[in-house]
Amino acid sequence: MVNTTVSETLLLGPGPCNVSENVLEALSRPLFGHLDPRFLGVMESVKSQLRIVFDTENSVTFPISATGSAGMEFLLVNFLEPGDTIVVGVNGVFGGRVAALSEKLGARVVKVEQEWGRAIDLDEFRDTIRRESPKIAALVNGETSTGVYQPMNGVGDVCREAGALLFMDCVTSLAGMPVHVDEWGADIVFSGTQKCLGVPPGLAPVTVSPRALEVYRNRSKPTPSFYLDLDALLAYVDGEGGRSYHHTAPISMVFALDAGLKEILDEGLESRWSRHARGAEYLRSELAAFGFEPVVPEGERLNPLTTLYLPDGFNDAEARSKLLMEHGIEVGAGLGPLAGKIWRIGLMAGNASESSVDRLTEALKSVLS
Amino acid sequence: MVNTTVSETLLLGPGPCNVSENVLEALSRPLFGHLDPRFLGVMESVKSQLRIVFDTENSVTFPISATGSAGMEFLLVNFLEPGDTIVVGVNGVFGGRVAALSEKLGARVVKVEQEWGRAIDLDEFRDTIRRESPKIAALVNGETSTGVYQPMNGVGDVCREAGALLFMDCVTSLAGMPVHVDEWGADIVFSGTQKCLGVPPGLAPVTVSPRALEVYRNRSKPTPSFYLDLDALLAYVDGEGGRSYHHTAPISMVFALDAGLKEILDEGLESRWSRHARGAEYLRSELAAFGFEPVVPEGERLNPLTTLYLPDGFNDAEARSKLLMEHGIEVGAGLGPLAGKIWRIGLMAGNASESSVDRLTEALKSVLS
Repeated sequence: MVNTTVSETLLLGPGPCNVSENVLEALSRPLFGHLDPRFLGVMESVKSQLRIVFDTENSVTFPISATGSAGMEFLLVNFLEPGDTIVVGVNGVFGGRVAALSEKLGARVVKVEQEWGRAIDLDEFRDTIRRESPKIAALVNGETSTGVYQPMNGVGDVCREAGALLFMDCVTSLAGMPVHVDEWGADIVFSGTQKCLGVPPGLAPVTVSPRALEVYRNRSKPTPSFYLDLDALLAYVDGEGGRSYHHTAPISMVFALDAGLKEILDEGLESRWSRHARGAEYLRSELAAFGFEPVVPEGERLNPLTTLYLPDGFNDAEARSKLLMEHGIEVGAGLGPLAGKIWRIGLMAGNASESSVDRLTEALKSVLS
Repeated sequence: MVNTTVSETLLLGPGPCNVSENVLEALSRPLFGHLDPRFLGVMESVKSQLRIVFDTENSVTFPISATGSAGMEFLLVNFLEPGDTIVVGVNGVFGGRVAALSEKLGARVVKVEQEWGRAIDLDEFRDTIRRESPKIAALVNGETSTGVYQPMNGVGDVCREAGALLFMDCVTSLAGMPVHVDEWGADIVFSGTQKCLGVPPGLAPVTVSPRALEVYRNRSKPTPSFYLDLDALLAYVDGEGGRSYHHTAPISMVFALDAGLKEILDEGLESRWSRHARGAEYLRSELAAFGFEPVVPEGERLNPLTTLYLPDGFNDAEARSKLLMEHGIEVGAGLGPLAGKIWRIGLMAGNASESSVDRLTEALKSVLS
């Protein structure tokens, strides 16, 4: 039950977004043990629903017991070894983070860079893969720092020809825009629960292709992690018959993810994508009236997260603070080179609606008056 | 609000335990943004309450955004470098895990071993520290796999003389038995939320001493992790003025931990320890009547988790399954060399009461009849 002493904030930042009563109720269910057959049933339900949402047949599909960024780390620490080459598309914070963590892990990093607010040039990216024959090629499908939705066409095929694994970050796109893991040939993929999945932050859904599993089996040394070690995790999340204890799963969060996934499948993925598209369209047109202009050109825009240049003379921090404190609405600031210049407005999961936009524009009128 | 369609299981295994209505209510509060000043206020409240529970003045005291095992990994990945020596007390699963992860991270591991069910011999442990002058000496204060409560006397002093950091796992002891981080000279310490803190699994409280911070500052290479990198985490959980974004904190779980800690401080730590001691005493005496005998000698017993040898001819798996499915009570099986030979019975947080024991003994009578 919602604590009535806490007034609800409309979360229109880059995530988390508001979650449904249903998901909150699931969070507050009495616990099962983490090896209780009934809990393992909930985990199986989560895994099979995640396969539908990722559009994949990968048997290795499950939630990592930590937030989205741990999903990225899971993919790199298991599939990249010191001395391996990784080609990374860098056009915002999250591509930069893939590159930085790969360097920490001792890999050779080849960046394909692009101005923030534009998609990576796929011709250049594919050529780089052909030239470098890397172990991994990494793209951010939904760049939360810039609002770019990265096309993925043909990259999977080039990765197959070059013997590379295709890494994909779909934290902000999953369940809000088309994501087709198998069709795109993405091999190692992660997301987070707090965006279009409509669940609080705390889990990182991942999926791993059979060819990625082969690469993992051929590691020269064991994964230098225990918490994120793929084999140890599989013995728990995927054990046939007896599951071995690895860590104590965050039971309440798994209940919440199960409930969030059920809502998504009840709505239908395509309807959900259309709803996010309509919301974004309406947001852009309504905010144009205030002088906000799109950062990202048409065709490369992430519907769940719209980025807009602030009007001339606009006081960024003051307006965000007033929106939050006086109107109970959170919007996101720009990051890196876009700090102070843009807003990031999320319309994710249940918040992807005209009524969220109307509440924001009403509040903006008051803030700017 | 509790979902009334789910009947509550009495969780008397090695964790998770049942959590209070109050904690469940906190879990289901509407979300704030993870950089919202009100959320940062909740995080400050968690940090200051954790300092009281750990009995430390360490400014670096906060919850890692993942389950207990990630707390262990946080300590090793930040404070141990390839080639460093670590002395580890191994008398159960969790000491073994510290040793295994240290090896994965390229350290030289010196084990001080002891039979499962007994505490590490402190004379031998201290002598080994003096001889090896390791970077880290590691002890498990509450060994969840065997039910041993490890004395810590004098180890901190020897570590200081030898220039070693004292690592301590207090997952199962914290808030259920005396834990005195500063008095014991423990430098790098972790716990989990799902035991005597009375919160669902999902966070790993950690605390780091100023001398450990110095060791960290003198690393030869950056920490080979992004998610668990101490500096990056500090910029978020401890930033003065502006907090930088690192990862999206698991907001609902932080609300729950805040509520759980408030309950602990309202009860008072010493009262809580006494309540756990009385519960354990009563459990041992009641189960003796069925022929269960203690694994751990007096003086080395963990009150939150009692381990008992099964009576002759007892059908372990069948009895646990009947307890769970017919009576809604979970107890824990033995692990490793103790599998099939013992039960692990947790009386943690709100479950540390005579009424939990009475419910268990009533059910046992029926199961054994």
